[in-house]
Amino acid sequence: MTDKQDSLDSLLQAVQSNQLSISEAKTKLSHYDELGFAKIDLHRRQRQGFPEVIFGEGKTTSQIIDIISTLLVHDEVVLVTRVDHDKAQDIIAKYSHLEYHETARIICTPINNISKSKYYTSIICAGTSDLPVAEEAAVTAEVMGIHVKRFYDVGVSGIHRLFSHIEAIRQGKVSIVVAGMEGALSSVVSGLVDHPVYSVPTSIGYGANLEGVTTLLSMVNSCAPGTSVLNIDNGFGGGYNAAMIIKMIEAY
Amino acid sequence: MTDKQDSLDSLLQAVQSNQLSISEAKTKLSHYDELGFAKIDLHRRQRQGFPEVIFGEGKTTSQIIDIISTLLVHDEVVLVTRVDHDKAQDIIAKYSHLEYHETARIICTPINNISKSKYYTSIICAGTSDLPVAEEAAVTAEVMGIHVKRFYDVGVSGIHRLFSHIEAIRQGKVSIVVAGMEGALSSVVSGLVDHPVYSVPTSIGYGANLEGVTTLLSMVNSCAPGTSVLNIDNGFGGGYNAAMIIKMIEAY
Amino acid sequence: MTDKQDSLDSLLQAVQSNQLSISEAKTKLSHYDELGFAKIDLHRRQRQGFPEVIFGEGKTTSQIIDIISTLLVHDEVVLVTRVDHDKAQDIIAKYSHLEYHETARIICTPINNISKSKYYTSIICAGTSDLPVAEEAAVTAEVMGIHVKRFYDVGVSGIHRLFSHIEAIRQGKVSIVVAGMEGALSSVVSGLVDHPVYSVPTSIGYGANLEGVTTLLSMVNSCAPGTSVLNIDNGFGGGYNAAMIIKMIEAY
Amino acid sequence: MTDKQDSLDSLLQAVQSNQLSISEAKTKLSHYDELGFAKIDLHRRQRQGFPEVIFGEGKTTSQIIDIISTLLVHDEVVLVTRVDHDKAQDIIAKYSHLEYHETARIICTPINNISKSKYYTSIICAGTSDLPVAEEAAVTAEVMGIHVKRFYDVGVSGIHRLFSHIEAIRQGKVSIVVAGMEGALSSVVSGLVDHPVYSVPTSIGYGANLEGVTTLLSMVNSCAPGTSVLNIDNGFGGGYNAAMIIKMIEAY
Amino acid sequence: MTDKQDSLDSLLQAVQSNQLSISEAKTKLSHYDELGFAKIDLHRRQRQGFPEVIFGEGKTTSQIIDIISTLLVHDEVVLVTRVDHDKAQDIIAKYSHLEYHETARIICTPINNISKSKYYTSIICAGTSDLPVAEEAAVTAEVMGIHVKRFYDVGVSGIHRLFSHIEAIRQGKVSIVVAGMEGALSSVVSGLVDHPVYSVPTSIGYGANLEGVTTLLSMVNSCAPGTSVLNIDNGFGGGYNAAMIIKMIEAY
Amino acid sequence: MTDKQDSLDSLLQAVQSNQLSISEAKTKLSHYDELGFAKIDLHRRQRQGFPEVIFGEGKTTSQIIDIISTLLVHDEVVLVTRVDHDKAQDIIAKYSHLEYHETARIICTPINNISKSKYYTSIICAGTSDLPVAEEAAVTAEVMGIHVKRFYDVGVSGIHRLFSHIEAIRQGKVSIVVAGMEGALSSVVSGLVDHPVYSVPTSIGYGANLEGVTTLLSMVNSCAPGTSVLNIDNGFGGGYNAAMIIKMIEAY
Amino acid sequence: MTDKQDSLDSLLQAVQSNQLSISEAKTKLSHYDELGFAKIDLHRRQRQGFPEVIFGEGKTTSQIIDIISTLLVHDEVVLVTRVDHDKAQDIIAKYSHLEYHETARIICTPINNISKSKYYTSIICAGTSDLPVAEEAAVTAEVMGIHVKRFYDVGVSGIHRLFSHIEAIRQGKVSIVVAGMEGALSSVVSGLVDHPVYSVPTSIGYGANLEGVTTLLSMVNSCAPGTSVLNIDNGFGGGYNAAMIIKMIEAY
Amino acid sequence: MTDKQDSLDSLLQAVQSNQLSISEAKTKLSHYDELGFAKIDLHRRQRQGFPEVIFGEGKTTSQIIDIISTLLVHDEVVLVTRVDHDKAQDIIAKYSHLEYHETARIICTPINNISKSKYYTSIICAGTSDLPVAEEAAVTAEVMGIHVKRFYDVGVSGIHRLFSHIEAIRQGKVSIVVAGMEGALSSVVSGLVDHPVYSVPTSIGYGANLEGVTTLLSMVNSCAPGTSVLNIDNGFGGGYNAAMIIKMIEAY
Repeated sequence: MTDKQDSLDSLLQAVQSNQLSISEAKTKLSHYDELGFAKIDLHRRQRQGFPEVIFGEGKTTSQIIDIISTLLVHDEVVLVTRVDHDKAQDIIAKYSHLEYHETARIICTPINNISKSKYYTSIICAGTSDLPVAEEAAVTAEVMGIHVKRFYDVGVSGIHRLFSHIEAIRQGKVSIVVAGMEGALSSVVSGLVDHPVYSVPTSIGYGANLEGVTTLLSMVNSCAPGTSVLNIDNGFGGGYNAAMIIKMIEAY
Repeated sequence: MTDKQDSLDSLLQAVQSNQLSISEAKTKLSHYDELGFAKIDLHRRQRQGFPEVIFGEGKTTSQIIDIISTLLVHDEVVLVTRVDHDKAQDIIAKYSHLEYHETARIICTPINNISKSKYYTSIICAGTSDLPVAEEAAVTAEVMGIHVKRFYDVGVSGIHRLFSHIEAIRQGKVSIVVAGMEGALSSVVSGLVDHPVYSVPTSIGYGANLEGVTTLLSMVNSCAPGTSVLNIDNGFGGGYNAAMIIKMIEAY
Repeated sequence: MTDKQDSLDSLLQAVQSNQLSISEAKTKLSHYDELGFAKIDLHRRQRQGFPEVIFGEGKTTSQIIDIISTLLVHDEVVLVTRVDHDKAQDIIAKYSHLEYHETARIICTPINNISKSKYYTSIICAGTSDLPVAEEAAVTAEVMGIHVKRFYDVGVSGIHRLFSHIEAIRQGKVSIVVAGMEGALSSVVSGLVDHPVYSVPTSIGYGANLEGVTTLLSMVNSCAPGTSVLNIDNGFGGGYNAAMIIKMIEAY
Repeated sequence: MTDKQDSLDSLLQAVQSNQLSISEAKTKLSHYDELGFAKIDLHRRQRQGFPEVIFGEGKTTSQIIDIISTLLVHDEVVLVTRVDHDKAQDIIAKYSHLEYHETARIICTPINNISKSKYYTSIICAGTSDLPVAEEAAVTAEVMGIHVKRFYDVGVSGIHRLFSHIEAIRQGKVSIVVAGMEGALSSVVSGLVDHPVYSVPTSIGYGANLEGVTTLLSMVNSCAPGTSVLNIDNGFGGGYNAAMIIKMIEAY
Repeated sequence: MTDKQDSLDSLLQAVQSNQLSISEAKTKLSHYDELGFAKIDLHRRQRQGFPEVIFGEGKTTSQIIDIISTLLVHDEVVLVTRVDHDKAQDIIAKYSHLEYHETARIICTPINNISKSKYYTSIICAGTSDLPVAEEAAVTAEVMGIHVKRFYDVGVSGIHRLFSHIEAIRQGKVSIVVAGMEGALSSVVSGLVDHPVYSVPTSIGYGANLEGVTTLLSMVNSCAPGTSVLNIDNGFGGGYNAAMIIKMIEAY
Repeated sequence: MTDKQDSLDSLLQAVQSNQLSISEAKTKLSHYDELGFAKIDLHRRQRQGFPEVIFGEGKTTSQIIDIISTLLVHDEVVLVTRVDHDKAQDIIAKYSHLEYHETARIICTPINNISKSKYYTSIICAGTSDLPVAEEAAVTAEVMGIHVKRFYDVGVSGIHRLFSHIEAIRQGKVSIVVAGMEGALSSVVSGLVDHPVYSVPTSIGYGANLEGVTTLLSMVNSCAPGTSVLNIDNGFGGGYNAAMIIKMIEAY
Repeated sequence: MTDKQDSLDSLLQAVQSNQLSISEAKTKLSHYDELGFAKIDLHRRQRQGFPEVIFGEGKTTSQIIDIISTLLVHDEVVLVTRVDHDKAQDIIAKYSHLEYHETARIICTPINNISKSKYYTSIICAGTSDLPVAEEAAVTAEVMGIHVKRFYDVGVSGIHRLFSHIEAIRQGKVSIVVAGMEGALSSVVSGLVDHPVYSVPTSIGYGANLEGVTTLLSMVNSCAPGTSVLNIDNGFGGGYNAAMIIKMIEAY
Repeated sequence: MTDKQDSLDSLLQAVQSNQLSISEAKTKLSHYDELGFAKIDLHRRQRQGFPEVIFGEGKTTSQIIDIISTLLVHDEVVLVTRVDHDKAQDIIAKYSHLEYHETARIICTPINNISKSKYYTSIICAGTSDLPVAEEAAVTAEVMGIHVKRFYDVGVSGIHRLFSHIEAIRQGKVSIVVAGMEGALSSVVSGLVDHPVYSVPTSIGYGANLEGVTTLLSMVNSCAPGTSVLNIDNGFGGGYNAAMIIKMIEAY
């Protein structure tokens, strides 16, 4: 980027020194659109301290290693999602200071090295099969510096399990509900808390679950007003949004 | 039917008296298949005391009046579903001893004239918009001689409303859950009772509710085991199934 | 749970003995919500004698073994569904007093050790490919102490096969119809019996069957009133509901 | 067409008389493709004696009148489908020798004027709501000179009604099954006859019937081999196909 | 079946000889429903000479061998569809007088041993990928004694290929169109012939073809009247229906 | 509620004074579950200052008037969504101190009477047809005391319109994107801001838009991470969630 | 826009005259992003001579009149699509020099006043019901200065009608195929020409046509390579794309 | 073909020499339909210089080799799409003068041997996972003699990446946009250029992406007018259409 910055300086200096007419300068300026965008974008990353995220699915091990090496030059935080066990072994072998979260399928900067927020997001999960998605949300938020409380296996078929934790869930600032099947947990939680609920449908279920599409549509139709919905199995999206909110609360 | 019964008697008597050969009798018997079925079917109706039901939607007023007049000759109980206000006025004008349930859109034998079962079915309804379907279930069951307890407006967005009635719901023998939108009430109730739950999805909802298809699919995917599902807005089916169960319990 | 019960006793004794003020007691009571639910839930299981069911699909062998070992401490009945052959070998090797039903894919307490109900549920199955789902329903009901009669390979393409058994089907108290493809068997049976019919669509079929979604929608649209529908391939749900009904009939 | 025919004569005569070279003739011939097709098509209509059919839906009364007037010049048979009551009044007012079949929504040459085939097609219909589609099939076949036997209101919820007619249905050469809801009648009939069955799904049903799509998919998945499926509510197609078969049988 | 026939004789003789009262005879007769149906069904098979078909998909080799051995006792014709290469090897090893059609995936009585009809069905196929479905239709018809003419690789993207064969196609009595993708061949052929066209959509295609559902819906919506549709990849159904028609033509 | 509170006091006092045994007290306490939930729920409403919202669609004018009158006794804020012009006239005639927002179809406490937050939510709207949904979001947020900035008619087909406002959008704390058709605006905005984006699909579009389902699915699949999705046309849900976030930011 | 242009001049002049430092100038320039885009966009419209199009559906008469009045100040060409008869009367009453195309539902600058291209696009239409969409494409192209040849009522059910025009269709530079039902015309035409074919599915059809979705999916799956697809009923899009191509051909 | 050509010559010569009457000649000519079509088709290929394309998916290596050998006799250009790595090795081993493009999965005549057009098509790609489809489009166009410029990894989540190339994209004559997920890139590009845009949805995405169907529907609903859509993953179709346009521009 720096050469472009330089050339903007040069252009204005050329105007200043009358080496370039105003009309020529205007023509040339019309080619700098992209510069402005790129600069702003860079600023955004720096201001937020949010990690550059690598979606690992469909990338080869060596592609992931290349992107990590680039990130390590510029950032302190690494977050790679959807990394299966085998790829993870090879990557960790090369970058031994990173850690692999098996259930979450995430490689990242060690979470204990990252300072956490005062406020927390709850992650509420219906069944043990939903754990990979719930953990993707949890580790994403933690890498972004957010304090996370996990409430797992509290599905509505035995609703007393949810109620035994409801006070702690209410004291969080955001809730992420991860559920498959009919996704009823999303409506029940949204009706019991007064903060934003992110609902993440999972592809867990069978038959007419349609690999999560039923859960997604069900959650979108929630009768409780305070929830919005992510894509199927998109734990990362849930964690990312929750983190943005808690960052903002703590910034003020 | 009686003439056919007679002719079976006659046929066998003709065999007995040698007026009809065995081979001729076998040929004639091959034409009585339908007789057997019709007879059995008649027996079923009589044994159960279940009304012959008229689905009023798409039938003209005079068609309905004709069918009622036939029923009145044979039965004491009339049940016509999906009758709108205007048709109902004309029908009641003719059969003033029948009554019209406006919300349920049902014309039937006066419910107070029908003796009720000792045990009851609960009808649990999420929102006021679901009332027509819930009442169709309720009046159907009542016409069939079943004691009904109504628990309306107890949707999961304010789940305390459901819990204030849960003991009474548990003491029923069957529950019919009527809900639109995401249908979460179905799973929550099924997880709290130990009797069969019939889930009736309604077409109440908007957007991605797809006129009840989302609710139907959601209910079919319930994470709680003790529920089964009726067609969208099929309150009649819910009431009918619940009545069959309570009839059987009281018969033994 | 007993420690929580104790502490409720203790709390009230402390009020009685003036060791705890009424206002303090009210605060503490607000934390006992979950207690009440848990207790009631426990009661429900004990009263019904229904087994705690383990959904084996997606669980590892060692996870299943752990849950079984917990169940064996408290219960006498074990029911694990969706266990494939290989997992089953390892589990049976450890718990040799349990038995594996290969077609049903179920591991359970030996069925012969369980006393059966006087009344039975029929299980009616269209084709040999539907057998795993039908057997899941059958073994589930048997483990729950229900007498089961099986009527297999009676699809409507040769409807005389069904009619040769219709009297026995009618004498049951519940019918479970298991069918794939167009699921017509559900309507035909529902039109011939006067007890509740549970229709279980299977994913058997090809092309526009859409892995059972067509069968599900077809069954939901049955023209015969006395049926309700389970999720695709959910034999367990069919058996569980049928068992609840027969338990209730025999309890009165 | 005659001018084109003439010019083909002319062309060949010009070759014969050496007024046109062979290479020029070949070039010109490449422009006569369409002629050949048109001619053949005309032949087909004449050979079959099948009416030119007018699909009335979406056409104005005057458009329909124009097409009829053209047909009357060339043909003796008129068949206009999907004509509602009001349009029909205006058209019959003009062509008083045509007749209107109200339920079938068809205007046609009087059926009694058309000689009928020796063999018949059965038209089997599940419910009274399906009558318009069944009658569209019936009148279409009759206009095409086919003997039709109607078996109406024989849905599978009371299967004895079907069986009382099964012998007559079997003696037909084709069966057209018209049904809505779950469409089970299609499979049951196909399993009982040994001639081709055309299944016409109707849009009659509610909720998850999806305006006939469920019925269509159900019929396509029939477990009985001898059936094929028309579009939703396409009674005309059913009648047309059945007529082609019976015409062929009687032609040999 | 004969023992049941005998017992009907015996029953009537007992009535005749006064060994059985008329009322007892009526009760016993109610158990003979199934007999009638079974007998009729047996007659149907014998009258038609149509083979009992085995759907091989999802059956084990030994299951198929068992069914074949039963068939060989009663019938002369064997037809097993959807048999993959490996299973076929084992089956042919046991029944060396049967033959395996690899592309059609069919094991059957040698086709050359079966006498063929005078009239033929055309089988018209869009692309080479559709061959397995086209051959399933062809071999099915041939096993049923039908003369088949194959017109393969004549898709509409190069419509001249179809036109070079259109006269021969027209001279057949039935056409079976096998196509994937947009299935346009079905409409084009139906517009060019005056006999019934069976359209068999295949799952060949990609992307928005939805594994044949798009093709199926497209074919159902054909703008040409003379076609009806089979399930996706259901070549057997196409061949079976075509055979029924040609059998009828030749029977009269 | 206060009488229930009293009776809890009374119960504990009765224990304290030995007028009630501990075992009797435990039994009675098991009936207070609902009390606890109701109380907590009441607290939540009071703490948040969020209005009780009335969904006006499907309710009669008199039903809405009744609910408003109840609200006015307890609350200072009224919010009724989905009120059409005619109903609104009648309601405003009765409650002249409320105001009607025609485009938003909302009746509410006058917005100018409500103090607004320091931070604002942006509402970004693709086309003029999407205005009713955008205004429903805007007025909802304003009634909840949130400062709103509107950026309307900035669809991606002329993306310069969006960029001319991007700095102001970035300075908001939340963005609500309201769009129909392909919904691309959601991804573009989410890629340009670093706060949560709520995407509200609208039913605006035609053909394969499927009344907003395409837009919904498109938004759920956004390639930009910081967005979550509401139901089709659910402007209220977007405004409600945005308000919860800004309330939290300003509370700390 | 001119004031913004002025301020860019001013800014550069201020740099030139040293009244503004280079660093200050860079800051200010970052706010001119939108200027650049707007300017470029304006240029694009001028360079192409393409009309600004108004989508009339969902807009009030007065909204349309306002937009037209703005266009008339800047442009010479007006194109308003989806205007029904009643709105059109009011608009033409005000702008009598515009003309209304009733079938196309378009108000535009008189087409005869617009000079046409040398090359033409063909518009090929399957049935008379598809005419409104075909005419929307035709008039759109004509307003954009393109020569159009119409080939209507040439559906594949009588394919000779298409072949009689195929030479003229081939000589065009683009083809727009407008068809409903199964959309087979798209594949047939694409296989016969060597220029781009735009396929426009219409919502004409019934039953499983799904209001054009089936046609859309069918066209997307065309087996012929040279076609691409527009939204259902989007005649405008077809005309617009065809016009862009012919403009380019004539520009070189 | 040559023997048929000869016989057309012979026929005309026979007419010329009076060896064949005109009426006999007319009869014989009616059998030459297919000849005309085949000839025209052959001409089309020759005139365009477009390669005969082999769709490699589902074909065996030896089938592909056979078709290539046939092509090599007649054409100079080979294009085989959808060839996986292993097949490609075997084919290249035989035809070493062909080259394999691994990412594009294409075997073709070496691209450097083919002269390129003056004007270019842009190929714009959202993510690295979309590369195989983008490259299929690119290599197809190149084999057809088109100059291609690639703009990869310019998705809308970081829209500055697209803007840095927008000038070059605008200077192309056609754009092919290849994107998965929500496909927003299609609308954004179409709004920024004034030439035809071909949108190719890819199956890249997860959850509610539905393997590209969501992307397809989204692109079809683009709010920007100048785009049309290909089937999911159909890069070949995009390249083919773009090539036809540029060929036409350069031909004039």
